[in-house]
Order: sequence, then C-alpha cells, then structure tokens
Amino acid sequence: MSLLVIGSVAFDAIESPFGKTDKIIGGAATYISLSASNFVHKTNIVSVVGGDFPQTGLDMLKENNVDLEGLQIKENEKTFFWSGKYHNDMNTRDTLDTQLNVLETFNPVLPNNYQDCEFLMLGNLAPAVQKQVINGLHNRPKLIVMDTMNFWMDIAMDELKSTISMVDVLSINDEEARQLSGEYSLRRAAQKILAMGPQYLIIKKGEHGALLFDNNEVFFAPALPLEEVFDPTGAGDTFAGGFIGYLAETKDISFSNMKRAVIYGSAMASFCVEKFGTERLENLTAGELEKRVHEFIDLVQFDISLVNS
Amino acid sequence: MSLLVIGSVAFDAIESPFGKTDKIIGGAATYISLSASNFVHKTNIVSVVGGDFPQTGLDMLKENNVDLEGLQIKENEKTFFWSGKYHNDMNTRDTLDTQLNVLETFNPVLPNNYQDCEFLMLGNLAPAVQKQVINGLHNRPKLIVMDTMNFWMDIAMDELKSTISMVDVLSINDEEARQLSGEYSLRRAAQKILAMGPQYLIIKKGEHGALLFDNNEVFFAPALPLEEVFDPTGAGDTFAGGFIGYLAETKDISFSNMKRAVIYGSAMASFCVEKFGTERLENLTAGELEKRVHEFIDLVQFDISLVNS
Repeated sequence: MSLLVIGSVAFDAIESPFGKTDKIIGGAATYISLSASNFVHKTNIVSVVGGDFPQTGLDMLKENNVDLEGLQIKENEKTFFWSGKYHNDMNTRDTLDTQLNVLETFNPVLPNNYQDCEFLMLGNLAPAVQKQVINGLHNRPKLIVMDTMNFWMDIAMDELKSTISMVDVLSINDEEARQLSGEYSLRRAAQKILAMGPQYLIIKKGEHGALLFDNNEVFFAPALPLEEVFDPTGAGDTFAGGFIGYLAETKDISFSNMKRAVIYGSAMASFCVEKFGTERLENLTAGELEKRVHEFIDLVQFDISLVNS
Repeated sequence: MSLLVIGSVAFDAIESPFGKTDKIIGGAATYISLSASNFVHKTNIVSVVGGDFPQTGLDMLKENNVDLEGLQIKENEKTFFWSGKYHNDMNTRDTLDTQLNVLETFNPVLPNNYQDCEFLMLGNLAPAVQKQVINGLHNRPKLIVMDTMNFWMDIAMDELKSTISMVDVLSINDEEARQLSGEYSLRRAAQKILAMGPQYLIIKKGEHGALLFDNNEVFFAPALPLEEVFDPTGAGDTFAGGFIGYLAETKDISFSNMKRAVIYGSAMASFCVEKFGTERLENLTAGELEKRVHEFIDLVQFDISLVNS
C-alpha cells in the first residue's frame, strides 16, 4: 500500500475560551498525515510551505513517518496562515485572518516515488488543485477520499462538483452537506450527493458524531462525550487521517471495514481536541488509541435479541 | 408490574414548515402512555382535563390500554392548551400561547387501585405536584423516572432540586442539563446532576440522540436519521414512555437493560415525529416497532476485535 495526502501545511493562530496560541503548526495535510501515521508506516504528502516554516516542524513530521519529498519549500515566500477564534460553545468559530501566501500559486508536483499511490486523501484545497493531483497519477488509486469546505461551494461550485464526481468518498460536515445538496434532511442530502458520483459519503457532525452513507446503508459513529474540548482545530482532518490510514493499513474497502475506519477516525479526532494544535497527536501511543477505541465500543454497545433477527 | 404516569393531557396547536393543526390532543401523559402501551398491558394515568376534552380523545386512550380512573374531568373548566411554532430547522420552536386552565389548580389524586405502582413516570409538571405523587404512594416504586423542563429551573429551582433528589432516573435535554448543572460539558454536567440524587441521568439531544449516564458508565443511542421530521412535539415524552414501558415490561432495571430501554425509547420517538401529534403512535404495530429497532442495530453496529478485548 501507499498513502498519499495532499492539503495545506500551515501556521494557525487560535483563540478559544481556554487560551490563545501564537503561530503554531497546522494545516489539513499536517493533521491528516499525523493521524494516519498511527496506522501506516509511511505517508507521502504533497504540499507547499514558505521559507518561514521552521526546521522543527519538518523534523516533527519526519519523526511521525511523513515523507517530505513532495513538500515544496519556497524560500522567498511565506507559509499559509489562518487565524480563528472559537466561541464558548466550541462549535462555532470566526475566522480572524487568512493569508494564502504560498497556496495562492500552489502547483502540486508528484514525485515519481509517489506514483504507486493506492490510497489518496485529498485534504481541503481548491477543487481544481485536488483534480490536478488525481489527473497527475498514472494509475487510478484504489480509493480516493476527498475533504472540502463551504468556501469552495460559495465560489467554485461547478469545479467542486466536477472534482467530487471523480472521488470514491466525500467527507464534509452537516452544514456543508445541506449547502451542497439544497436539502435540510441529512438522509435526503446524502441521496443527492451520492448521485453526484461518490460511492460513499461521510457527514461529520462535530460533537454529535459522524454518519457514513452508501446507496443502501447508513452507519452512525458517536463522538466521545469529553470532559473538556480544548481546541477543535484540525478535528475533521484528524478524523479523515484516521479513516484513510486505517483503510490503507487493512487494504479492505468494504462497507463493514469503512465502519471500523469511521470509529478509528472518531477516536483520533477525540484526541486531537484535547490539546491545542497537533500537540496531542504527536506522541500518541498505540495503547492509548486502543483504550480509546474500547471506550467507543462501550459507548454504543447494546444487546437486543429480536425474534426475527 | 404496574405503571403509573402523571403529566398533562392537553390540547396542542402546532405550526411547522409542513403545515398547521387546529387544537389536537397532546400533553406529556398522553404521549408517555401511548408510547408505553406498546410494551405494557395497562398504563394508569393521573391527570386532569376540562369539560371541553372530547369523548373521542378518551376513547382513543382507552383503546390504547390507558386506564382513566385517575383522570379528573372538571366539567366547568378548560383543558390545558399549548400552542407553538417550529422553525425551519425543526430543532427550535417558539411558544405562541400557554393556557394553564385546569392545570393551575391541579391536585393529583391517586385511586386506591394505583397503589400497586412499581414503575412511576413523572411527566413534566410543577415539581411540587410531582413530589406530591411520590409522597402519595404508600410504598416507594421500584423505579421513579422524572422528566422536567427549563421553565421550572427558571422559577422553582429549589423545589425542582428537592424533587430530583427523590427520583432514580432524570430525563432532560442537553440545554436543560447545562442550565441545571452550570456546566457546558455534558460529561461534567452529568457528574454534577448525579450528585443531586438520581442514580441515572438521560440527556436527550433531539436529532442528535440521547446519552444515558450512571456514576460509572455512559451509553449513547443515536437518533435515526429520518428523511422527514414532520412534528417534533411529544418526541421527548414518547421517548420516556418507551423507556419506562420497556423497563416495566421486562422488570429489569440493570444498566444493560436500561441501554435497551433507551434504544426502544429512541425507536418510539422516531415514529412520533413522522406525523402531526399522536397520529403515528395510535396505531403502531409490533412489527413496525421491531423493524425500527433493527434499523437502530444496523445504524450503530460495528465489529472491532482488539487484542486486549
């Protein structure tokens, strides 16, 4: 197997009711690959940073089995920067600042070594860039998972739909599913979105869990009720990284294995929010992950024997 | 076993994006007992209506195995009336009108036949009235489940806490749990509320499911993703009726059986919202219920084998 991730590697500055960070390392590809590294031995990433990106950040990624051959470093430019502030409920946030910097002209280049890609995770980026990566692969991967956000629905809906039609799994949140489909009911939204091309749809509902749909089935994974949510930044990407990392490790893309992958993704996301930024993900142990997955099993496990089972 | 339910029997007038009703039959005791009737052979209710309450309403309750000996009919007064309007998201609503009428002076009287009560469901009413019913029973029931709402937290918090301290299971929604505990995190809210006396706490999250807590464990039951939610009125009471009805039928109040009861309650609530008022509950078949419970099993069932399981 080989897992390829594209997305931003960035600086974030975060304010939450629990405190405030200076510029810390973030970005979709960062969270996805750190999360996936708990399942696969190597994650290839295609992304771009500026000359201001610290060596310690690169080292941290390498130590987490992230291959950086596909990471362009533009010495005379600046890294993508996002700044946001969370409200008291931690579910809503305001963007305070977005500086595209190196992302403005990002042209994803695939190293030859990355052509063996079987699992492709398209982190949130312009849909045209996501499509360029799909088209740059000589062989279609076994599975393409795509994340996106409402921003592209507002300004590039046609390009977005075109890219969505090329992927196997689309991962978006509930509000985005409603915007993309024009349907309030998530069940109806899923029907319309699956008709756009993907075989599977994941609808992320933050603290309310995640739904996995195909044309016949629906699966629900709860979020773990946590005592404290410290910083939700990157939780969706961490979920996606756990999801595709688990699938890439097990090489099984059946619906029943995708259900397991959703649970592992949810478990990873539950760690992400416990500390600011990527801190909680950087040194996570296999034992901690297993314990957390147990908590998910206990959380939803019940035993009903029906006459006609 | 014997199941006793107290709560309002009322008229509701409902507006939703799907339409508008005239005065239809509603009330906490109505929804609870209709829902419980799918599990037990007889439900005793203690409530009050006015002379304007139609015979057809009484007949409908009787046909659903509701014993009306404890239902006071005050010929010269009017039945409790509530009117509300749901917003487009169906999760929020405005109260348009509340006329207490007979409820203003409601003095619950327990028929002697009801003294064998083993399972007591205190539907939403003034906490002083709920307490009066507990004190009116010669023997403490095996299980007392209490529902309440934010209204009583606003105007009668001390009386409410006093009544809460006397029950085994408290059932409230997420906002009410936050208000009652002063904690935003539901996990922390649960700790504080369980310290007030109840052994178990159910936190209802509407379309996001329900959580069951005791001091050691937490269980999560999803809500079924529905194509259409027509009218959420009574969903919480229907949940409670299914929950206590299942427990009363099985006579098992262990945590693992309460988990099943939460699933049955959730299944009942999923029917309630499919039509206006009590319509969907009045003629529900055992086969429909079993099929629905199967959908809940399929929705959350996954199979992960961990090394240290």
